[in-house]
Amino acid sequence: MARNYNRVYNFSAGPAVLPEEVLKQAADDMMNYNNSGMSVMEMSHRSKTFDEIIKTAEQDLRDLLNIPDNYKVLFMQGGAHLQFSMVPINLLKNGVADYIVTGQWAKKAYIEAQKYGKINKIASSEDKTFSYIPDCSDLPISEDADYVYICENNTIYGTKFHKLPDTKGKILVADVSSCFLSEPIDVTKYGLLYAGVQKNVGPAGVQIIIIREDLIREDLPEWCPTMLKYKTHADNDSLYNTPPAYGIYICGLVFKWLKKLGGLEKMKEINENKAKILYDFLDNSKMFKSTVEKGSRSIMNVPFVTGNEDLDKKFIEEAKKAGFIQLKGHRTVGGMRASIYNAMPTEGVIELVEFMKNFEKENM
Amino acid sequence: MARNYNRVYNFSAGPAVLPEEVLKQAADDMMNYNNSGMSVMEMSHRSKTFDEIIKTAEQDLRDLLNIPDNYKVLFMQGGAHLQFSMVPINLLKNGVADYIVTGQWAKKAYIEAQKYGKINKIASSEDKTFSYIPDCSDLPISEDADYVYICENNTIYGTKFHKLPDTKGKILVADVSSCFLSEPIDVTKYGLLYAGVQKNVGPAGVQIIIIREDLIREDLPEWCPTMLKYKTHADNDSLYNTPPAYGIYICGLVFKWLKKLGGLEKMKEINENKAKILYDFLDNSKMFKSTVEKGSRSIMNVPFVTGNEDLDKKFIEEAKKAGFIQLKGHRTVGGMRASIYNAMPTEGVIELVEFMKNFEKENM
Repeated sequence: MARNYNRVYNFSAGPAVLPEEVLKQAADDMMNYNNSGMSVMEMSHRSKTFDEIIKTAEQDLRDLLNIPDNYKVLFMQGGAHLQFSMVPINLLKNGVADYIVTGQWAKKAYIEAQKYGKINKIASSEDKTFSYIPDCSDLPISEDADYVYICENNTIYGTKFHKLPDTKGKILVADVSSCFLSEPIDVTKYGLLYAGVQKNVGPAGVQIIIIREDLIREDLPEWCPTMLKYKTHADNDSLYNTPPAYGIYICGLVFKWLKKLGGLEKMKEINENKAKILYDFLDNSKMFKSTVEKGSRSIMNVPFVTGNEDLDKKFIEEAKKAGFIQLKGHRTVGGMRASIYNAMPTEGVIELVEFMKNFEKENM
Repeated sequence: MARNYNRVYNFSAGPAVLPEEVLKQAADDMMNYNNSGMSVMEMSHRSKTFDEIIKTAEQDLRDLLNIPDNYKVLFMQGGAHLQFSMVPINLLKNGVADYIVTGQWAKKAYIEAQKYGKINKIASSEDKTFSYIPDCSDLPISEDADYVYICENNTIYGTKFHKLPDTKGKILVADVSSCFLSEPIDVTKYGLLYAGVQKNVGPAGVQIIIIREDLIREDLPEWCPTMLKYKTHADNDSLYNTPPAYGIYICGLVFKWLKKLGGLEKMKEINENKAKILYDFLDNSKMFKSTVEKGSRSIMNVPFVTGNEDLDKKFIEEAKKAGFIQLKGHRTVGGMRASIYNAMPTEGVIELVEFMKNFEKENM
């Protein structure tokens, strides 16, 4: 196996594997970034050097996603959990929103939003442990809904919206944390989309928000903390207060890596190929099975089971010894989960499948 | 000058200089932390390896500050600005608090708190551009005040409370961002203290909160976002959601560095000596003057002026060329500011003073 620095194949759902090239660059830059005489960690966020880092990162992201000029890109803190509150606080005007509940994170967002208005669950896949994406072609969208909310890729359950819901003209808000930059998207279809970078882009502690400018409002409830207004961050180009500067720098390196690779069309091709290798094996295996309906499968997170808990456990242990790490499934699904984000090399998936084949042979 | 890796002397007010030893360790660990086969950035926050990192960091911090068992240590996101809201939201019961306004950050905290209750300014030093700490021995503390708030070290103005205010039995809340771990403190004198780590401890994006357990409440306003309750983080040992894991790891390395150095008594001795070298020069210089009253001076942030704006500018430019970086003062004070945090080596201050002496000779 060609693994440099004795690195493992890391299938963690997040924080997750990053490109080796990016980590090497970060290590090289640590004592002295680009002849600044200091680490990016030590740099004033008001310095010219950091200004260039954050502006370049934003521009590269705009290039990758083809983000229109009437959308703001915000680098924030607090994770998706803070967005669960910020979205309703900032976007509710009529006080009504429709949520599609396809997993634990969508459900948490739905529950948190109830503090702020009349929140409707207009579709759900909880009846089958969130193992599919419901039909969203003709949903009972509320007439006065301020927005329709989805979690586009469900990290825990391994499902993904392959077609965005028909919101009947209402604004779409999406948590895209675990599929962010895995393929091209049409940003204009969303009013707001956000991603915790620790899945596919960088270290935990940076949240990227892409929001249509006309949705950024001033007239918010009086109790709303200044830090929880999108306007605060938008008006100050993400520098209202000290941003998570080092994390933004790493994201920037990942954006450069993606551009060098050929952009998101190319990334999608690689990701679909990686996922196909694994799903093809699962669909033909006598031991391992995907837990997700075919039309709803994620190309980032792939849960699977043997159907036997003891065997699952044995597999996870032996895989770990062989250098395939963090394959344990989420407790609500059981079994295994391989998260095969952008930075997971194709050979990592090929070698995992080889390992699974051998395990199957030896344990049938 | 003995500078490794062509590093500069970085006098930034924050993000700021970190110990070279810590950065070297971070660079060495980047591709493969402690034989885990991955970077700390790539590590699940639920993994055993990260669990050890965060638990060790907390314990080392407890050792350094001698934190009593009835205080919780929380690692959070959002910076001091989020605490400006969280403190009143979480601590107001009677709806009354008293603020001592000794600088821009205390003032911002005071203004933000007004959203949530009757907030009194019981002392201020704004009359003299915050160049001193007011007498706080007999303040008009409100009878029903839920807490008294201070910013203990004022980064911009270079002042510090050398004696804590007499709160007449009320709970003391302190923003200690820019003096955190610069010297020993008696934690029991505070109900809550918090620090953005980007001044003295680590990379921006981590906030450390130390809070007495009985102040952690459940009965908060219904609109309070889950993420803005101290209880959420306290009940989950800072792992309610994905924490800023890499930043916490760097903080942990800094805590180890402090312990190895001899702890906070030793750190205080070094810091006081560094500050004395600079202040002694300023008090004897014919060109450079401290802007701060003697009894109120910070040992972390040292603003000074020549009294001539053109000369200030020339000094900053020439200093930069000589490798003394980020000496420009805050726009509200003008002139220069040398932030000489824990990680600024004594020789950095000695060499700065030498440079100032030469500049004075050449420009008088």
